[in-house]
Amino acid sequence: MSLIVHKYGGTSMGSIERIKNVARRIAKWQKAGYQVVVVPSAMSGETNRLLGLAREISDRADPRELDQIASTGEQVSVGLLAIALQAIGVKAKSYTGWQVPVTTNSAYTKARIESIDDARVRRDLAEGAVVVITGFQGIDAHQNITTLGRGGSDTSAVAVAAALKADECLIYTDVDGVYTTDPRIVPEAKRLEKVTFEEMLEMASLGSKVLQIRSVEFAGKYKVKTRVLSSLTDPEMPLAEEAASGTLITYEEDETMEQAVISGIAFNRDEAKITVAGVPDRPGIAYKILGPVAEANIDVDMIIQNVSHDGQTDFSFTVHRNELDKALDVLKSKVQGEIQAKAITGAKDICKVSVVGIGMRSHVGIASQMFETLAKEGINIQMISTSEIKISVVIDDKYMELAVRALHKAFGLES
Amino acid sequence: MSLIVHKYGGTSMGSIERIKNVARRIAKWQKAGYQVVVVPSAMSGETNRLLGLAREISDRADPRELDQIASTGEQVSVGLLAIALQAIGVKAKSYTGWQVPVTTNSAYTKARIESIDDARVRRDLAEGAVVVITGFQGIDAHQNITTLGRGGSDTSAVAVAAALKADECLIYTDVDGVYTTDPRIVPEAKRLEKVTFEEMLEMASLGSKVLQIRSVEFAGKYKVKTRVLSSLTDPEMPLAEEAASGTLITYEEDETMEQAVISGIAFNRDEAKITVAGVPDRPGIAYKILGPVAEANIDVDMIIQNVSHDGQTDFSFTVHRNELDKALDVLKSKVQGEIQAKAITGAKDICKVSVVGIGMRSHVGIASQMFETLAKEGINIQMISTSEIKISVVIDDKYMELAVRALHKAFGLES
Repeated sequence: MSLIVHKYGGTSMGSIERIKNVARRIAKWQKAGYQVVVVPSAMSGETNRLLGLAREISDRADPRELDQIASTGEQVSVGLLAIALQAIGVKAKSYTGWQVPVTTNSAYTKARIESIDDARVRRDLAEGAVVVITGFQGIDAHQNITTLGRGGSDTSAVAVAAALKADECLIYTDVDGVYTTDPRIVPEAKRLEKVTFEEMLEMASLGSKVLQIRSVEFAGKYKVKTRVLSSLTDPEMPLAEEAASGTLITYEEDETMEQAVISGIAFNRDEAKITVAGVPDRPGIAYKILGPVAEANIDVDMIIQNVSHDGQTDFSFTVHRNELDKALDVLKSKVQGEIQAKAITGAKDICKVSVVGIGMRSHVGIASQMFETLAKEGINIQMISTSEIKISVVIDDKYMELAVRALHKAFGLES
Repeated sequence: MSLIVHKYGGTSMGSIERIKNVARRIAKWQKAGYQVVVVPSAMSGETNRLLGLAREISDRADPRELDQIASTGEQVSVGLLAIALQAIGVKAKSYTGWQVPVTTNSAYTKARIESIDDARVRRDLAEGAVVVITGFQGIDAHQNITTLGRGGSDTSAVAVAAALKADECLIYTDVDGVYTTDPRIVPEAKRLEKVTFEEMLEMASLGSKVLQIRSVEFAGKYKVKTRVLSSLTDPEMPLAEEAASGTLITYEEDETMEQAVISGIAFNRDEAKITVAGVPDRPGIAYKILGPVAEANIDVDMIIQNVSHDGQTDFSFTVHRNELDKALDVLKSKVQGEIQAKAITGAKDICKVSVVGIGMRSHVGIASQMFETLAKEGINIQMISTSEIKISVVIDDKYMELAVRALHKAFGLES
């Protein structure tokens, strides 16, 4: 029997009416012969409300306690969804992360899943029940509740699908798929029917906010077929039609089709740039700079170091904007003296724009076309970073929309 | 070092400001050299809000899922209180019922505590932390979350105090102690400085809604000194004064003082009366009637059977008003045919009024004085039930206030 994991976001769970619609959709899949595991998010606004209460008390709240509090949003959701399923005659049972258990490390507020025990879930599925599991959370080795960070329910869903070897993981969300870029910025943006994990990874991490990046990593690593599709359609729409909608994220490169060179333009306005200027160019410097930053649990995205002059070099990287001050504190207190850097500076008025495409591997000229397009628009490039399937540039914040539109057009994505 | 358990009700936890006050009060006790374990309720209104969401979906929701949902109210409270304590420099750590763990049976929505593991709590106390534990909930043998039913946080607090062999359990609430009767009905009602567990048990079960009855049972069984006191006083009031305020519920009868014969008048308007009329008077009938009721998890309070006439008798008992219909269903479907009862009737327009006092044991004439007082007011008595320390009557609902006032005066409680 086919096993499907459904994931519903906060908007889909946003009211009692919507929860009832989610239940009807799930019932349709079960009636069609699928075993179904569901991972719902907290009702929209609930996580913010809970963390807001904590913030009213203290702006430096203990992350362990924040997780204790924030994890309740999903716990309420699974109970309500189980009741909604039962109310329409579908056998259902809810579990929290610790009940499954979903084991994570102890990095509160941004924990990572280590393992998922599938015994309880399989038993219930065998008995014909729909199993509803909290997203976003788990339990560490010391029985503490942990959360996976914002968007963590996507990761939970894909991880559950991997653990259960599900046939497909359907991520129901308020958009109907993955687009070549954000349609709010480029109205001509087109929905992709398929995208590879690698492309999606670049798209997600670079700011196309459809899926949480770690969910895509999981999907790629464990080869979970994952589909992003809309939860705003009629719950009673024909199953075959629903099953083919949205965007499939796949681990198979589609050899039979003419592959577009570029699959999309991604962007990200949540980052800040840090430059450690005038550091001696010798082995171990990168570690000396980034070690303390990593220890402070600050995620780093782009890292750039160019050739040196006179034995000195500049080292730049980007962090989440909210963590800029913390990162600068760490660098000034623990790093600057140690490595004798001349200056440490940070800037928030930047953005990152990226061209992504698996087809890029075998094509030259993409980078030059990108740089040319930006130059024509008079946009200065502050940093460049490339991988096999993407080219990212950091530019002035205010040019973001202009850059995205120009690139979308230059690479012919609207056609 | 003395160990104290504090319990705070929903009103005391009703806003961020109040939670901060609770933290200040706890800090005062810790500073004075006490080890402190705190059991807070959910923020006022929260449990109703959560259960209301479930009820919007279904009025026959799965009790397991209701507990999954309702237990989150206290989980948020413990996290917030731990953060509030940390914010004023007090080391603190929160635990849910399952984290302690507090083990219960599997009777969802009205589970009973079976054991409490004190290892984790003791370790934190030894390290100088205040430990904050969710009230109202536990975990059953199959890792399901259970709740103890309304007012269950009182029971949790006393059970935790018993498990930790705490020196005293302080129940902070919105009244400043136990009164001879409800001051809203009898303005002359007086606060009792001390009351025995047995008296309190009768007072609580009969409707003086200061403490949940099971908490008093626990307190009596495990000899936990329990004090009911106000959370509305200044958190910075002198500790010695606070420690002597309220009403102490004690297991020691106070031999040195002149004991009042009657300690209070209790009442209860939440019950309904059921009469199974015309049943054959033979062994096993009571079990045949109440067995199916108990199996349906319906609590029974007063049970009365009088002498028989012509081999037949009437069997009456009271249940909670909300369970009257369910109890009548059970009796009509499973009992009536079986025992050939002539009629099964129920009535909701009743109340129970009780005179309670440990001193009653050694004094005759209390019952007759009670009946005389009611007769003078023209109040008909429908049922009578007595124990060593209380006499209860069931009367017409509409006479309740009149009966309570008359009895309070007749037994000289206002002086």
